[in-house]
Amino acid sequence: MVPRGKPKRGQARLVKTPREFLAETVERNKTKPFRNKHLSATFLGTASATPTRKRGMPSIAIKYDDLLLWDCGEGCQMEMMRRRIGSGSVKAVFLTHLHLDHFLGVFGLVKTLGMARQRRIDIFAPDRFRKIMDAMEIDPSFFSTKEMEVGKLYSGDQYDVSAFRVKHRNIDSFGLVFKEQERTRIDTEKTGALGFSQQNYVDISTQGETIIGEKKIGIEEVLVCVKGRKIIYSGDTVYDERIAQIAEGADLLIHEATYTEEFADLAAKNGHSTARQAAEIARMAGAKKLVLTHFSRMCSNDVLEREAKELFENTLIAKDGMKVEVKQEKWA
Amino acid sequence: MVPRGKPKRGQARLVKTPREFLAETVERNKTKPFRNKHLSATFLGTASATPTRKRGMPSIAIKYDDLLLWDCGEGCQMEMMRRRIGSGSVKAVFLTHLHLDHFLGVFGLVKTLGMARQRRIDIFAPDRFRKIMDAMEIDPSFFSTKEMEVGKLYSGDQYDVSAFRVKHRNIDSFGLVFKEQERTRIDTEKTGALGFSQQNYVDISTQGETIIGEKKIGIEEVLVCVKGRKIIYSGDTVYDERIAQIAEGADLLIHEATYTEEFADLAAKNGHSTARQAAEIARMAGAKKLVLTHFSRMCSNDVLEREAKELFENTLIAKDGMKVEVKQEKWA
Repeated sequence: MVPRGKPKRGQARLVKTPREFLAETVERNKTKPFRNKHLSATFLGTASATPTRKRGMPSIAIKYDDLLLWDCGEGCQMEMMRRRIGSGSVKAVFLTHLHLDHFLGVFGLVKTLGMARQRRIDIFAPDRFRKIMDAMEIDPSFFSTKEMEVGKLYSGDQYDVSAFRVKHRNIDSFGLVFKEQERTRIDTEKTGALGFSQQNYVDISTQGETIIGEKKIGIEEVLVCVKGRKIIYSGDTVYDERIAQIAEGADLLIHEATYTEEFADLAAKNGHSTARQAAEIARMAGAKKLVLTHFSRMCSNDVLEREAKELFENTLIAKDGMKVEVKQEKWA
Repeated sequence: MVPRGKPKRGQARLVKTPREFLAETVERNKTKPFRNKHLSATFLGTASATPTRKRGMPSIAIKYDDLLLWDCGEGCQMEMMRRRIGSGSVKAVFLTHLHLDHFLGVFGLVKTLGMARQRRIDIFAPDRFRKIMDAMEIDPSFFSTKEMEVGKLYSGDQYDVSAFRVKHRNIDSFGLVFKEQERTRIDTEKTGALGFSQQNYVDISTQGETIIGEKKIGIEEVLVCVKGRKIIYSGDTVYDERIAQIAEGADLLIHEATYTEEFADLAAKNGHSTARQAAEIARMAGAKKLVLTHFSRMCSNDVLEREAKELFENTLIAKDGMKVEVKQEKWA
């Protein structure tokens, strides 16, 4: 079921070269300086279908100043309180598909936020969601419903969220990408080696070049590229190599792993993935880290972990409340 | 706001005299012996509107062999797991009104139960609920939706559940009554005093009379009435003396007490009650015990308790997970 061959290089390459980054970001950095921010994903619920004593319904809180919720299963707002994640900073909720376990928490959350602050949140969801919201008769000043579709959905300060289509039974189903803005910064190692003075810094920042001795230094020579961080969430999906393309070079791939290999047939039948299949996607994508979530109660954590790690060592089995920091990386 | 006068006797009497019980229940007891069962109410969520760290959304589990849920707020199924209350024995869910905090848990519960056992549960709810269920597109083999209306709604083994109308804003809103069957049983104190032999027991049970010495003993002389236990739940309601009539002689009155007296105006405006008003209803009804629930986060437990106890001593402030046993009482 999982192909063993090496990923085909080139085929999946969606990111730019450092040189390409550089050209694009020099100008942007001049007009709007980039602020460093913490980026993390907290797993609020990690079960599939029905809750267990230890695992609640699917929801992932992406924190980057703003708080974004990816799926919002029943009890999400209680879980946020329990984990001391203030729901007041939630800007938008993204519902990958309309199976009950992935969205039942959104109504209570919207009500709570609406009562508390009278500010709307955006809810991105497949089309049928409007009908559900209408039936609920929640005060429409509390939220805006927006249709989930492939491509860029939402832009915040220094980031975008976009969606891609996945295959999960016969229901409209999406995966999500958080992408931080790419940018450059002056590398003090390089400027130090060149013996930059205060004036050199001023010149190069304002004019794009400066002179040291008799040598003209262009800004490209002292800049370092900082690649925007990238988190991918598969939503509910069958094994699908297209996800590896989209996830190429991701700092964090969050992939569903409903089953162990023992239940591989069931995974295919129910439109889900095994832990091993998720690991194969991470390996093909060259992701830095893989977090598995959305587990069937029939499968043991140990087996899920072992089967995934055979293919992709840097794998974590999500637990409710687990927070994964995504660190900044220099890329020059 | 709370009238101080004594309850008008007679006006509110809805229960029968012991003599009336006796005549009615002798026959029934012969054909179907009554089984003694534990009866309890467990509070699964005790907040109003939005959850707090300590209080979840409204739901009360009434246990009498069968499990009945009165309201089913978000997270109800998780709370049942946490309290080790098996949801597998849930027979019916009664939704007092369609404010979000009182029904958002029902969808996940229905899904979980449906997946586990493929047996329907009954959901009693105000009319608009059908529209919500339709929008959710839950497998219709998992549940039956029935309209909540005044009068007897549901009959189980030795009990009935009925509904009465309450006033809560401008929404269809109901209170609920659990009523155990009335019955008689042979009182061994009486038969002992009369010197009953084994044959006397057989005779009186099968023929309705027996002879000791030269004296004919009718079954009425050795029977004792056992009054069916009664639990009343106010749902969300303004102060309403009609509830005291319906609750007359209740073993347990569960009354909402959203606010302390400080917020009495808000209670009236929002269609809710204060703890003191709930206590007044319990006093007028001659209830044996009062449990207050559905608290606003603005109000202190201590003040709620103090204000209620000034009028009705046997008052408890519900906590999440609190179980109140309703004991059998002999009434002869």
